[in-house]
Amino acid sequence: MGGENSQLSSYLKSMIRSLPDHPIPGVTFRDITTLMDDPTGFARVIDGMAEPFLEQGITKVAAIEARGFMVGGALAYRLGTGFVPVRKKGKLPYKTVSMSYELEYGTDELEIHVDAAQAGDRILLVDDLIATGGTAVAAIQLFRSVGAEIIASSFIIDLVDLGGAEKVRAAGVDVYTLLQY
Amino acid sequence: MGGENSQLSSYLKSMIRSLPDHPIPGVTFRDITTLMDDPTGFARVIDGMAEPFLEQGITKVAAIEARGFMVGGALAYRLGTGFVPVRKKGKLPYKTVSMSYELEYGTDELEIHVDAAQAGDRILLVDDLIATGGTAVAAIQLFRSVGAEIIASSFIIDLVDLGGAEKVRAAGVDVYTLLQY
Repeated sequence: MGGENSQLSSYLKSMIRSLPDHPIPGVTFRDITTLMDDPTGFARVIDGMAEPFLEQGITKVAAIEARGFMVGGALAYRLGTGFVPVRKKGKLPYKTVSMSYELEYGTDELEIHVDAAQAGDRILLVDDLIATGGTAVAAIQLFRSVGAEIIASSFIIDLVDLGGAEKVRAAGVDVYTLLQY
Repeated sequence: MGGENSQLSSYLKSMIRSLPDHPIPGVTFRDITTLMDDPTGFARVIDGMAEPFLEQGITKVAAIEARGFMVGGALAYRLGTGFVPVRKKGKLPYKTVSMSYELEYGTDELEIHVDAAQAGDRILLVDDLIATGGTAVAAIQLFRSVGAEIIASSFIIDLVDLGGAEKVRAAGVDVYTLLQY
């Protein structure tokens, strides 16, 4: 895993807005919009996420809808790769492959276009935050189902107690995060 | 408005997938995912959208959910600005301002955080495509309601017959597009 850079981590944390008891009592929501709308904060997020992958031959950055798109597009540009959206069911216009994942109650599905990646592609999977890891594991399975390789996954925030990073590592994919709660 | 660069426009069009009769008979859907997942295509989109604004003192790139986030984050990174998401109602965690806009049947609402921008901010509004212009005009009104200035709007694609670009210009905001159908 990516070692947390404690100086960068403290800086980024100082710009994240914590909303107690949101969306439900007892849960603190980490609002990254106050980090993203600051030019220095946003640049440091993208540079920090990109740094381990500058020389890794990544061909495509894949990002999970919708907050993942905000960092995924910038990372793809920084790394000089293509960008692939991983979307909720029914949002992509062409032929897709789908993978279901568990929610607290019930299941949901993620999709990619069948030709979004193929054998030879080296994918960096990104999202703003890793919680339970359900969507990340589903996305990993999607890319493997079309023959692509997932080189690593990268998130701004790791909600450690929810165990998502361990779940992704158990699926055989390294996890990089800029800060942890 | 931004003059269309015909060489760049032809190149980008060659990478966009056209899906006839989608989502309904008689409509051709322009699928940009085949452009975005190509490293050269994606870089040319971002560089082409950024070019007119390199020296314009933009402070924040604002992007409309969800496809707008893919280009908006990369543009904010390229321009060295902050990034502000414009989201569908109920998606943002903190206090918001809302603006309704018309759909073919009924209305919907866009929101930004009340503190996402303020007087002194010079906003570049971006989305992947301009169609009827309803969401773009609602987004412009949102930023003006918190005292920020909209410097221009930028889209990959202009669906000319739907009249959105004219509607945005009538609201007093310049429209830049990379290609037109």
